[in-house]
Amino acid sequence: MELIDRWQRGQLEILSEDECRDLLTSGTVGRVAYNDDQGPVVTPVNYSVNDGSVLLATSPDGQLARHAPSQWVALEVDEIDRDEHSGWSVLVRGRTEVVEYADLPASHQSRPAPWAAGERTLYLRIAPASLSGRRLLPA
Amino acid sequence: MELIDRWQRGQLEILSEDECRDLLTSGTVGRVAYNDDQGPVVTPVNYSVNDGSVLLATSPDGQLARHAPSQWVALEVDEIDRDEHSGWSVLVRGRTEVVEYADLPASHQSRPAPWAAGERTLYLRIAPASLSGRRLLPA
Repeated sequence: MELIDRWQRGQLEILSEDECRDLLTSGTVGRVAYNDDQGPVVTPVNYSVNDGSVLLATSPDGQLARHAPSQWVALEVDEIDRDEHSGWSVLVRGRTEVVEYADLPASHQSRPAPWAAGERTLYLRIAPASLSGRRLLPA
Repeated sequence: MELIDRWQRGQLEILSEDECRDLLTSGTVGRVAYNDDQGPVVTPVNYSVNDGSVLLATSPDGQLARHAPSQWVALEVDEIDRDEHSGWSVLVRGRTEVVEYADLPASHQSRPAPWAAGERTLYLRIAPASLSGRRLLPA
């Protein structure tokens, strides 16, 4: 029973940095993790990639604005196939910095486009210190 | 242009704790966030819910095993509609503890069933200190 179970489980493979960059760049929604006073928090977020950095737009009086600036955060992007039990996941880790409006990329396409209503006028840039990813192959 | 843009963005609503519990319980894959020496890490993970606690099964010599036991972690579960620009997200936060094999739920259905091959013989329980969630309505 235990052996059969293992045969039916998929193999994990490491993604190259190029693959990670392509997958990251092709997406617009991920999950950002940061720490508040009681450890890690994860929340979905829209992002864009510009010049190799990740840009987020958030509310100036929200939890991200309070806890993320100048701190280490992680952005996770994935695609999971619940039927196949497979998928991939890419993780960017780095310290954030606040980006002034004047320093945003000129092209609106290169700026994050939040799906959620409300003021999202605080821009955070994650300068990637590391980029890694894995793919889980179907069993 | 700015106004039109805002009209087309969706509203966020807070999920009740009952809704969060139902959504959490109906899932089997989420993302766990923990801290290593350089801040938060996020990785997809299979989980189960038993008696209100979240159970994970991980490799005894992996990163989770190294950094998560007895620490604060978060498990995020979500469903995102990239076409509708909508979705929901639920977050469980709490401290983990290692669960001995003998103390696992008797029913295999109540134990986490990892999709990925490899030894996943370290069981971690997240005792939920908080449970929260949000839904993003289509614009």
